[in-house]
Amino acid sequence: MTWQRPDGRSLTAIRPVTFERFFTKFSPGSVLVKCGDTQILCTVSFEDEVPTFVGSQQGWLKAEYRFLPGATPRRQEREREKISGRTAEIQRLIGRSLRSVVDFEQLGSRTIRIDADVLQADGGTRTAAITGGYVALQDAVDWLQAKGLIEGSPLIAQVAAISVGIVQGSVVADLCYLEDSQADVDLNVVMTATGQFVEVQGTAEKQTFSPEQLQDMLNVAHQGIQQLITLQQQARLD
Amino acid sequence: MTWQRPDGRSLTAIRPVTFERFFTKFSPGSVLVKCGDTQILCTVSFEDEVPTFVGSQQGWLKAEYRFLPGATPRRQEREREKISGRTAEIQRLIGRSLRSVVDFEQLGSRTIRIDADVLQADGGTRTAAITGGYVALQDAVDWLQAKGLIEGSPLIAQVAAISVGIVQGSVVADLCYLEDSQADVDLNVVMTATGQFVEVQGTAEKQTFSPEQLQDMLNVAHQGIQQLITLQQQARLD
Amino acid sequence: MTWQRPDGRSLTAIRPVTFERFFTKFSPGSVLVKCGDTQILCTVSFEDEVPTFVGSQQGWLKAEYRFLPGATPRRQEREREKISGRTAEIQRLIGRSLRSVVDFEQLGSRTIRIDADVLQADGGTRTAAITGGYVALQDAVDWLQAKGLIEGSPLIAQVAAISVGIVQGSVVADLCYLEDSQADVDLNVVMTATGQFVEVQGTAEKQTFSPEQLQDMLNVAHQGIQQLITLQQQARLD
Amino acid sequence: MTWQRPDGRSLTAIRPVTFERFFTKFSPGSVLVKCGDTQILCTVSFEDEVPTFVGSQQGWLKAEYRFLPGATPRRQEREREKISGRTAEIQRLIGRSLRSVVDFEQLGSRTIRIDADVLQADGGTRTAAITGGYVALQDAVDWLQAKGLIEGSPLIAQVAAISVGIVQGSVVADLCYLEDSQADVDLNVVMTATGQFVEVQGTAEKQTFSPEQLQDMLNVAHQGIQQLITLQQQARLD
Amino acid sequence: MTWQRPDGRSLTAIRPVTFERFFTKFSPGSVLVKCGDTQILCTVSFEDEVPTFVGSQQGWLKAEYRFLPGATPRRQEREREKISGRTAEIQRLIGRSLRSVVDFEQLGSRTIRIDADVLQADGGTRTAAITGGYVALQDAVDWLQAKGLIEGSPLIAQVAAISVGIVQGSVVADLCYLEDSQADVDLNVVMTATGQFVEVQGTAEKQTFSPEQLQDMLNVAHQGIQQLITLQQQARLD
Amino acid sequence: MTWQRPDGRSLTAIRPVTFERFFTKFSPGSVLVKCGDTQILCTVSFEDEVPTFVGSQQGWLKAEYRFLPGATPRRQEREREKISGRTAEIQRLIGRSLRSVVDFEQLGSRTIRIDADVLQADGGTRTAAITGGYVALQDAVDWLQAKGLIEGSPLIAQVAAISVGIVQGSVVADLCYLEDSQADVDLNVVMTATGQFVEVQGTAEKQTFSPEQLQDMLNVAHQGIQQLITLQQQARLD
Repeated sequence: MTWQRPDGRSLTAIRPVTFERFFTKFSPGSVLVKCGDTQILCTVSFEDEVPTFVGSQQGWLKAEYRFLPGATPRRQEREREKISGRTAEIQRLIGRSLRSVVDFEQLGSRTIRIDADVLQADGGTRTAAITGGYVALQDAVDWLQAKGLIEGSPLIAQVAAISVGIVQGSVVADLCYLEDSQADVDLNVVMTATGQFVEVQGTAEKQTFSPEQLQDMLNVAHQGIQQLITLQQQARLD
Repeated sequence: MTWQRPDGRSLTAIRPVTFERFFTKFSPGSVLVKCGDTQILCTVSFEDEVPTFVGSQQGWLKAEYRFLPGATPRRQEREREKISGRTAEIQRLIGRSLRSVVDFEQLGSRTIRIDADVLQADGGTRTAAITGGYVALQDAVDWLQAKGLIEGSPLIAQVAAISVGIVQGSVVADLCYLEDSQADVDLNVVMTATGQFVEVQGTAEKQTFSPEQLQDMLNVAHQGIQQLITLQQQARLD
Repeated sequence: MTWQRPDGRSLTAIRPVTFERFFTKFSPGSVLVKCGDTQILCTVSFEDEVPTFVGSQQGWLKAEYRFLPGATPRRQEREREKISGRTAEIQRLIGRSLRSVVDFEQLGSRTIRIDADVLQADGGTRTAAITGGYVALQDAVDWLQAKGLIEGSPLIAQVAAISVGIVQGSVVADLCYLEDSQADVDLNVVMTATGQFVEVQGTAEKQTFSPEQLQDMLNVAHQGIQQLITLQQQARLD
Repeated sequence: MTWQRPDGRSLTAIRPVTFERFFTKFSPGSVLVKCGDTQILCTVSFEDEVPTFVGSQQGWLKAEYRFLPGATPRRQEREREKISGRTAEIQRLIGRSLRSVVDFEQLGSRTIRIDADVLQADGGTRTAAITGGYVALQDAVDWLQAKGLIEGSPLIAQVAAISVGIVQGSVVADLCYLEDSQADVDLNVVMTATGQFVEVQGTAEKQTFSPEQLQDMLNVAHQGIQQLITLQQQARLD
Repeated sequence: MTWQRPDGRSLTAIRPVTFERFFTKFSPGSVLVKCGDTQILCTVSFEDEVPTFVGSQQGWLKAEYRFLPGATPRRQEREREKISGRTAEIQRLIGRSLRSVVDFEQLGSRTIRIDADVLQADGGTRTAAITGGYVALQDAVDWLQAKGLIEGSPLIAQVAAISVGIVQGSVVADLCYLEDSQADVDLNVVMTATGQFVEVQGTAEKQTFSPEQLQDMLNVAHQGIQQLITLQQQARLD
Repeated sequence: MTWQRPDGRSLTAIRPVTFERFFTKFSPGSVLVKCGDTQILCTVSFEDEVPTFVGSQQGWLKAEYRFLPGATPRRQEREREKISGRTAEIQRLIGRSLRSVVDFEQLGSRTIRIDADVLQADGGTRTAAITGGYVALQDAVDWLQAKGLIEGSPLIAQVAAISVGIVQGSVVADLCYLEDSQADVDLNVVMTATGQFVEVQGTAEKQTFSPEQLQDMLNVAHQGIQQLITLQQQARLD
């Protein structure tokens, strides 16, 4: 096949990923995650209140996701009166994904707030926010334990996320913006370190897709997730 | 296995589905779709303008989804200043799903508006809105052709949607509200009459799920979709 | 006089009126009222809280009124951030009219919510919402009594509403949309079964009107109301 | 009968009314109208644009109505995101009433803006705004003619408004706040100098009312309007 | 120098200033302040609640500032969903300035609300609002003492405000709108009767300014403030 | 005097300041400015449209200022429907200050957008945003020239800003958050490289201040500005 990825990667290779922990100093968890040219600041805070529907015996986790105005070549207006449907959908995905790995009884009656602010956007921002947000969450939980506010860790699994897609007939991993805008199919996968699915969101952007193509994409996603899981673990050793 | 579905259905059976076409008379497409106790009024309108990003040579399709206040046992407040994230996510899904079967060059420079107003909600509203919305869309396209506003049909595929899930360890089709609130995993599938995927959205509500479980759910969804496709075709004969 | 009404009715005849009770199943009162081609779903709910100004010893009633997007030949945008002045005025009229027949001490400390959602609009929607809303209110009060939540009925009178107008010099009853848009004067009357006024709202749309014309319109309205009162009573026997 | 009005007036007497014309200097029409302790600043402006539905050949008139925060003993919060239903209803009434006396073809393609800002509120603000607004409108039309922007006057009738009601069984004219809060029935009447109705809005606040009571109230309103019409004419002579 | 001020004043002279106390009767403090053609209604109210950050042992003061629509030759749209940055900045200045002269422990746990509604705008509205607001505040405090709600006065200093600027190279006091729109530099000064600064806000509108120019402007401001302080005291003797 | 600054600085010393230019890659100007623990990302964008009031022959500059949620020890809610008065006031100051050094005819018909996003807040954010924003502005102007979109530079002066205050009786430069919260007086000064004032904003936070104290603060501010001007120049050499 003659099609070349813009940065010369093989079809199933992921971009370089780094996690700068403790990027800012006032949040208990603060990670600048970079996936290629995508850069997201993930900060974690705790609040003593929980939403009413949660009850008083356990905790909750809420995520917010936003672009800084300078994150893209064309300036993004800030979302104010109402956030876009796209933003709502993404921050719900981030919230559900990270909630799936927290034992809220163990957490106790407090709310974890995850803020994912995109400083630079080059595709895969929602999945990078989950992957980086998990590392910030670990640091924030450490802080909670160091303060003596909880005993055991409420984290019950390790989680990472990746986007895969079909571009010009091929299954491709970790699409940059240019690839994403040409993709026929877009699939975001959130998975634990043990290979269990948390979320699978596949969308026919330009073409519908067959059961076989779905299977191929899931396999490529699984490989990428495994690499991200390892990189998350290495970042914690720094 | 001893678990019984509330209405006595087999695990993979769908609920009774009916389509009341021409339910109201001022919209070119107006279908009251019922899936068990879920009832949604789907109306289709045309507007002569298209969003700027579409350009002037082709059309577009936008969906809105709302609950009437009396649709649930506890009254729903109308969503006003900002719609909820859930509503935003659902109407984006409906819009993407129905856009996937429209040839927008064939449609010409006009916007299709799909309104899905839930009169009664008992689970599966987003998938019923897609399945019923497609029938309303066909009637509206007929109207456009009868008026001589377009020549050939811009519809390039037939589409339907279903929810499946895992309840107490079993894969279950077309969940009612009571089942949905107990499900460990929730999967919405949108598929064409030829078995191609348009959307796959799987979420670990209470438990993560394995690749095998995902495969089982996709198979059950495929069977249900085939039945819905047949029912849509029969409704058009009335 | 040579002027003919679009549907051939005599000048003072009202349109066919039907009430489909229990149209949806989750609301204690749910009536689909049809006045000619005007169709409105009236649902009633109860809430345990009352507004602060009401105090803790008695109840209250609030109404909301909206068009579904497909209710008119040209799609209606949903009203979101702020409802239009017209909508505010109408839902205040519906609320005041139905409050006038409720004994709020007898009701006890709860709020009745009336939702009037216009599925199809062909003139007279505000008056149909009151006439149909009253029937839904009766069913909801029955439900409250059947549940043992109140003893006697808090309904102290029966109420119905009609629009009359002056079209081409003649007094006309129950105007459809086409007539309404040509009317010189528009008068909405809300009246009890015993012939007492609840609301009288007359507006010079194109021409001012004399005291004699006002009296003629009030007489025609009175006759129409009496017929509606009888139809409401018959609907309760079904 | 032993009931006494707070200020000793006879039941059908109106309060002292004054019109301070040219109260501010930057508006072409600016009148401070006082009806007893009710004080409203009515200013008129012109804009070169008209709403789309009006077309390009004629003009339009829009009214806004607001309380200043200090207008009542208990401070009023300013209405911001959305005005209350009451405010919407009132400013629609003011707009309709004053539109009824303007020939919009004669006015030409411009919009008249009427602002009624209540400096002090003691009952009857909506009717005082109409009565005072008409005087400001006359001054503004004079200004338009003096500037040579129109030839003949677009004003085709003189209009004034009054509130009447039933308090303790008696028909009472021009209610102050204290009387208004005790009234069983409230009726606002807008009428021209020739005795034609523009608006009739009667509401059963605490008691429904009979056709005879309605007639009595209309008669009292007619007398009051005639006095207001004369006072408007005298103010123009100053 | 040949430049002449529009009204013939000397460069450092202020405009005629008057205070109409008790302008409306429902507010404990109500002053119509006029500085030349600038006219502002300042009303003061008290509320029993204080913001959370204040705590329960002392009081607070909040200011609001608005234009009436007819205050300027071109009609001002009311600010609704969001006030403009200019309005926010001005009402913060008014609030800070008047808070600086209140002993909030002496005031007790209540909030003073100052509303400055500009009836007519000809430059210097923010400073006139402070100067007039102080007089209204004194009357309101008298009312509080007359009611026996507080013992000693919580007012610890007398405060007034003035704008100065540089126009065509000269330092000018109390600019009217026409001068303000030509000024190179604009400086607002808020000062106590004893010559202490409360606020100094200087802005290079068209030209930056030197330390010497700043000193000249501060001196002219000081003289003007002293005259305003005297006029405030005389108004209290009426 | 025994009072010690938290970081041991002398009273008039500024904190360490660094400018990381080209911090993100999609904006023509992108500087991460650090003043002690205050960290602000300043990005500059260009838009082809200008506000209507500017006319078609020249350009404009607009600033936005926001906190990221994790910028402070206690999480900041994002400002959505309406920004706070404080934020409005600050972004107006940033905009005016940077507009004062741009020749808008030379810039041509385009709008410069400055976004100052506070990643970490420890006092002096508004002045750091101006000082850092100017460096980003220089880089963005270079980009415009390199692209051949303008010929000469539209920058007519170099500008920087500093906060000074009075803490425990002493004049102190460049206050950190802890000092700022204790200050009796707060003064923000914006000045050019040639010692001309652009903005002077002094506020009595807890105590009023004398003309002599104002003069002392202005002198200390002048010294600090000169150091910042030098640091800006050095950053451009990197």
